[in-house]
Amino acid sequence: MKPVCLVIGAGAGIGGSVAKRFAKEGYHSVLCRRSDDEGLKKLVSSIKADGGEATGYLLNAIKENTIEERIEQIESEIGPIEVVLFNLGAQVGNKPLEETTYKIFELGWRMATFALFRTASAVCPLMETRGKGTVLVTSSTAAVRGNAGQHSHAAAMGGRRMLCQSLNAQYAPKGIHIAHIVIDGAVDAPDTLGKILGPEKFQKLRENKGLDKDGLMLPTKIADTYLHLHQQHRSVWTHELDLRAFSDLAWWNH
Amino acid sequence: MKPVCLVIGAGAGIGGSVAKRFAKEGYHSVLCRRSDDEGLKKLVSSIKADGGEATGYLLNAIKENTIEERIEQIESEIGPIEVVLFNLGAQVGNKPLEETTYKIFELGWRMATFALFRTASAVCPLMETRGKGTVLVTSSTAAVRGNAGQHSHAAAMGGRRMLCQSLNAQYAPKGIHIAHIVIDGAVDAPDTLGKILGPEKFQKLRENKGLDKDGLMLPTKIADTYLHLHQQHRSVWTHELDLRAFSDLAWWNH
Amino acid sequence: MKPVCLVIGAGAGIGGSVAKRFAKEGYHSVLCRRSDDEGLKKLVSSIKADGGEATGYLLNAIKENTIEERIEQIESEIGPIEVVLFNLGAQVGNKPLEETTYKIFELGWRMATFALFRTASAVCPLMETRGKGTVLVTSSTAAVRGNAGQHSHAAAMGGRRMLCQSLNAQYAPKGIHIAHIVIDGAVDAPDTLGKILGPEKFQKLRENKGLDKDGLMLPTKIADTYLHLHQQHRSVWTHELDLRAFSDLAWWNH
Amino acid sequence: MKPVCLVIGAGAGIGGSVAKRFAKEGYHSVLCRRSDDEGLKKLVSSIKADGGEATGYLLNAIKENTIEERIEQIESEIGPIEVVLFNLGAQVGNKPLEETTYKIFELGWRMATFALFRTASAVCPLMETRGKGTVLVTSSTAAVRGNAGQHSHAAAMGGRRMLCQSLNAQYAPKGIHIAHIVIDGAVDAPDTLGKILGPEKFQKLRENKGLDKDGLMLPTKIADTYLHLHQQHRSVWTHELDLRAFSDLAWWNH
Repeated sequence: MKPVCLVIGAGAGIGGSVAKRFAKEGYHSVLCRRSDDEGLKKLVSSIKADGGEATGYLLNAIKENTIEERIEQIESEIGPIEVVLFNLGAQVGNKPLEETTYKIFELGWRMATFALFRTASAVCPLMETRGKGTVLVTSSTAAVRGNAGQHSHAAAMGGRRMLCQSLNAQYAPKGIHIAHIVIDGAVDAPDTLGKILGPEKFQKLRENKGLDKDGLMLPTKIADTYLHLHQQHRSVWTHELDLRAFSDLAWWNH
Repeated sequence: MKPVCLVIGAGAGIGGSVAKRFAKEGYHSVLCRRSDDEGLKKLVSSIKADGGEATGYLLNAIKENTIEERIEQIESEIGPIEVVLFNLGAQVGNKPLEETTYKIFELGWRMATFALFRTASAVCPLMETRGKGTVLVTSSTAAVRGNAGQHSHAAAMGGRRMLCQSLNAQYAPKGIHIAHIVIDGAVDAPDTLGKILGPEKFQKLRENKGLDKDGLMLPTKIADTYLHLHQQHRSVWTHELDLRAFSDLAWWNH
Repeated sequence: MKPVCLVIGAGAGIGGSVAKRFAKEGYHSVLCRRSDDEGLKKLVSSIKADGGEATGYLLNAIKENTIEERIEQIESEIGPIEVVLFNLGAQVGNKPLEETTYKIFELGWRMATFALFRTASAVCPLMETRGKGTVLVTSSTAAVRGNAGQHSHAAAMGGRRMLCQSLNAQYAPKGIHIAHIVIDGAVDAPDTLGKILGPEKFQKLRENKGLDKDGLMLPTKIADTYLHLHQQHRSVWTHELDLRAFSDLAWWNH
Repeated sequence: MKPVCLVIGAGAGIGGSVAKRFAKEGYHSVLCRRSDDEGLKKLVSSIKADGGEATGYLLNAIKENTIEERIEQIESEIGPIEVVLFNLGAQVGNKPLEETTYKIFELGWRMATFALFRTASAVCPLMETRGKGTVLVTSSTAAVRGNAGQHSHAAAMGGRRMLCQSLNAQYAPKGIHIAHIVIDGAVDAPDTLGKILGPEKFQKLRENKGLDKDGLMLPTKIADTYLHLHQQHRSVWTHELDLRAFSDLAWWNH
């Protein structure tokens, strides 16, 4: 029975690429995403076509018990979860305070902070009994800097970051590696950035910054770093790091 | 009609002291707290006895519409809110993950993050039309550093900090001063620390660290800095600062 | 005998304004600056004309023993130094690496980091024997964020910030208040910004951002906050805070 | 002609391990260290015994022109420097201010800050003309937090960190990857920690924390992460990350 790499938020960007990468390393990748069954099946199939093991589920992370039950089912039917990638974003675009409804604000928290807390609550005790495990948390610039129009996103991500530090303080000594990864730039991800921008603008961006210019962050390359974090020897763990395209300014420079 | 200083979270510590301090400066202080009507009346009376103006309300900040309606009523019946002190904490003591229930975690967010968002949503647009205002936010070490057992508190406070930065980015240019105040130590506050520790332990702590030793942060002295922040000229505003007793280590040193 | 407020770097901006402000509070202000004897005399005279006590010295801070001997002389002839404002900058304008000579880089360190270390070495032990004292350190955005072209400035200021934390860790428990003040914007200071820009550009800037627009930081208003820091009760000391004009973006937002 | 990996500060800890690791990847490793010719030769021999290429030099980094001339000679005689590891520390043990002499303080800066500036000044322009290169900078907790007794170390490392950010801002867009690596714990390194503690204490520490307990950071494992940083695709570069043993508290937690 292969160990499981569970990806919560498995679109065609970071989530899907990490699932592929870990499947290649011998993990059974479990891909969960809210919608687009077709896209999900395509990802699962492509992993299998490469000789890997994968299972896909639609999962509405903000609904009660969805994450908890899924984790239980995976543990009993697929295998022990050795790696979790928590990859849900909460970006809603820039909105001034007066357009940020209570509903948006709460949703941001439910997705970016509370869903991570629920995931950790379900999975960390299991990892603790096994004496090992890795929780990779995709995060963003908004976790370290609040900008105008980012009320919901920044509050949710700031909470996520501090939660990660708190989880790390409790669980690192138990052998569980918690990593908070600050994605500080635009990712070449059709399912997230592509949808926010729309197909036309996204295509233009790819032509201007991406492709041979490497100005958009390539999810397959991000996956290399995620894998490395998981593979770090326990005497040298990284808790936080940033990632951005070489041609981009770091968040503290703009 | 005096301008109003609204204190959300007005116990016998920072909140009550700031209310008194601003009343002395000519503000009508409105003190809101969840419970202890008697304590509230005592604070209001003592302000009046000093020749100040004050009104007190019991307010359950996590209940729907309580903050919003109170702000509306104050604006129409008492006066324009020029200063808000958001002073709700979300400390629940140290709890490992397995003892931090979903309810506790959500409550932390509702009090420390969402209630601030609701307060800002109600009050910032009013301040914007008047071209001025001050939002003072009491925060804590947990906003900048997540510790073991602080899952709920750190997530809530981390969210609060990023929200403050986001509010500042939108509203500072409109003349609204947002200040995020990191209280990095134990406050000599019977209504919060006193209740967490119990009367005996609290008394012991006061004898060991407080009183003539100044090892506990004195709320009346904290209030001096809050007032100073409000009085800063708009060409030289502080967004973030830390406060601790001279004899305490800064959070980054322990 | 009045207690002394020693200002190292006393131009017509922050340094001079703080000297004036403390003189008004009953301190004997000692103003030290590298050059412009006339400007120095004008500052001293204006303090005296207001009824304050002041002495001025030209002091080349990067020369051996200058600071040390001056402190010794002040202590024996004028009075005990209760407050030091270390206000030397090390801004050399933006220079790419290839134009940042070793000499520039070393000079930056000598002025911004080493001169503070020398000052602290001379003054902190004296303050320690008296059980009190305040060391106010003017710092800048470059202390918390390195930007292109800021190689010398950022290295010097980053060193300054960490030195302040280290001084604070040793001396706060001894009753010495060390404050690191991040000036995050342009100051309306003819002796520094004025000289960097030249009179014409400086005048334009004042017309566009300053004057009634409060977009340049007013040194007299900065002095209010410096005084407040000094007056904070020892149970509630601030070690670090930022300051900027309301209309400016915080450094983390641009 | 193999590309060169230049290690400045190549003891039997991080420096030597990185040299070995890169030699295995096909680089000609050039190892520079101040003293212990025998230790240096042993490192070089062991790399060669493994089939790698290596050259060793004694180099006094604080002496004028030593780094600059060495880089010139390497470029003309060995090959283009593609990777630099700047690995000089400046730890002098804990010393209160009164025992931190000017000489110590200056030495700290010369080794930890200025020598990096000199290295970057010599090597970055060369890398820029080639459109690529990696500068890995070993740093420490003292770069992000000043502690009592760390006056020299913290000032030097704080300067180093800001210099790295400044270098990154100028050179990342030119294809040069600058990484600032915060070593936040004790490294199992006989040449540094071993010498600070003395053989007996070091042996005890290894028995208590290291060996099968992985409580000391293993240099060979650190080298894996250094290599990964160098191998990151330019669309996803990390500028800063931390590293510590799983059983250690992060610097912000103690």
